[in-house]
Amino acid sequence: MKKIINHPERVVTEMLEGLVAAYPNQLKLIDGRAVVTRKNVPVANKVGIISGGGSGHEPAHAGYVGQGMLDAAVAGEVFTSPTPDQILEAIKAVDSGKGVFMVVKNYTGDVMNFDMAAELAEMEGIQVDKVVVNDDVAVEDSTFTTGRRGIAGTILVHKIAGAKAEMGATLADVKAVAEKVVKNVRSMGMAISPCTPPAVGKPSFTLGENEMEIGLGIHGEPGTERKPLATADEIATELTDHIFKDMPLSSGDEVAVMINGLGATPEMELFIVNRKVNQILKEKGIGVYETFVGNFMTSLEMAGCSVTLLKLDDELKDLLAAHANTPAFKK
Amino acid sequence: MKKIINHPERVVTEMLEGLVAAYPNQLKLIDGRAVVTRKNVPVANKVGIISGGGSGHEPAHAGYVGQGMLDAAVAGEVFTSPTPDQILEAIKAVDSGKGVFMVVKNYTGDVMNFDMAAELAEMEGIQVDKVVVNDDVAVEDSTFTTGRRGIAGTILVHKIAGAKAEMGATLADVKAVAEKVVKNVRSMGMAISPCTPPAVGKPSFTLGENEMEIGLGIHGEPGTERKPLATADEIATELTDHIFKDMPLSSGDEVAVMINGLGATPEMELFIVNRKVNQILKEKGIGVYETFVGNFMTSLEMAGCSVTLLKLDDELKDLLAAHANTPAFKK
Repeated sequence: MKKIINHPERVVTEMLEGLVAAYPNQLKLIDGRAVVTRKNVPVANKVGIISGGGSGHEPAHAGYVGQGMLDAAVAGEVFTSPTPDQILEAIKAVDSGKGVFMVVKNYTGDVMNFDMAAELAEMEGIQVDKVVVNDDVAVEDSTFTTGRRGIAGTILVHKIAGAKAEMGATLADVKAVAEKVVKNVRSMGMAISPCTPPAVGKPSFTLGENEMEIGLGIHGEPGTERKPLATADEIATELTDHIFKDMPLSSGDEVAVMINGLGATPEMELFIVNRKVNQILKEKGIGVYETFVGNFMTSLEMAGCSVTLLKLDDELKDLLAAHANTPAFKK
Repeated sequence: MKKIINHPERVVTEMLEGLVAAYPNQLKLIDGRAVVTRKNVPVANKVGIISGGGSGHEPAHAGYVGQGMLDAAVAGEVFTSPTPDQILEAIKAVDSGKGVFMVVKNYTGDVMNFDMAAELAEMEGIQVDKVVVNDDVAVEDSTFTTGRRGIAGTILVHKIAGAKAEMGATLADVKAVAEKVVKNVRSMGMAISPCTPPAVGKPSFTLGENEMEIGLGIHGEPGTERKPLATADEIATELTDHIFKDMPLSSGDEVAVMINGLGATPEMELFIVNRKVNQILKEKGIGVYETFVGNFMTSLEMAGCSVTLLKLDDELKDLLAAHANTPAFKK
């Protein structure tokens, strides 16, 4: 295992310390809890927005803490759900009295622990609600999930729910718009090489020198098909085809596009994929309102990418365009 | 060679098409020349700022085209200098009559071709000047360079020269501040795995399972020392020590810090490095004005990182803080 780390057991703590050291005026770390919040929380008269999950998906989620997105992010160990205690800590830190909204990726452990934390918070008189993001069209159930997995589309839920909360919306209104995003966002990914969780010390799966896996999850969970490495254009076509099958789009529809790198994919390759996705959408008469290309939801040093399409209406467009200032996402 | 591409010969063109497709309102591509400019160039009454070099270092340089940074970027083939013709095209596209300033990384081919383009432009009556960035303290001469190499510190030259030009400064004033940055910026990198240029098809060098190379260049040029993989803290210490030896800093000095990933390094590891760099600076009483952590100047899918320190004065701080809106860098 080749990694630039000090000790496999300390990667999460040290990463968060390094993050907060980089943004001392914007972020703070709740000692010993692996919870990163905005410097000044709770934000008065605003629904608090939190997210989180296992680490190893950086910049998700602590990189999205800041104005216009999250109030706090809770980091579990690598590929491991955070505990209810940690999540409760985050909920309490960000509640201004207006309630707290949780953006949860659909993994069994995450959903269970966020729900448990919400129950504990409610016992302390804090109003809590949530959305479960399940944008991955690859497989119905997986190693870690009942139902579809939540992957890169989650960042667009952060952005839009965060913008809504920033405008002073109620908890119910934040939930309504977050559910609208979940209803209209779909993703699908693929990988050409695995990642190595630091505490495990060996790759999470193996792929032959000329193999790729389509539909792979962000923890290396199996996908739909393992086959010979195709061209970027063929990969872009296959991923978008899967999305279209699940969420038909018509000429005149408008979408936001996210081409997400899984950690070790050169930006060059992501832009080559975007080129084809853009061509495919144009040929179908689908308008591209905005495109995001980069590492948004990674899987340590996995090489591969995912494509996300979010079908937009005027409300979602306005919220997507709203100001945001976080380490990993600025508007 | 495992890459998400269509054809090794088309990677640069298709990447730039994919980039411009992602930012159609901000960028445009000069057909067949691999030159990316702002959508509306020349910007009236502003010194035009251009940069460029071999491809494979994305987001450098086309990702830095936009308000507050570059007016155009010229892309050579992977790890290959752009031609004087291409560079001339960029100069002509961005000249508003106030002259054009070139930010050139110190590689023999780049310097020669940018100089040749400048001469051609001057024959057409365009005033051109340049700065050569040589921030890498690792080695004095290298495979591709006489004198020190230009690496990630180049991005800070883009930022600061770009901000100065945006304020309406003259060509001479832009040059003066760019030279001040070059005088005060130092970088040093290391790698734990090589990259594979698409047209070559095999890794540019090999490293043993437990080896790292200190001082490696962004094209895989040899560094100062190959040795057993150390901890993140040891690596951070060694890189900053090399920088301090070359540019002594004193208690009370203020710096900007850039922790740059070479392409395949998980963000987790970059933040762990930043944690230690930040501690080292604090112990020395050196103030950290701002920190940048991410993939700014990469080497395809090389794994490794570089540390850059820029010693600041009030002018540099103001220019660093000024508004910028480019695909890869926003303020």
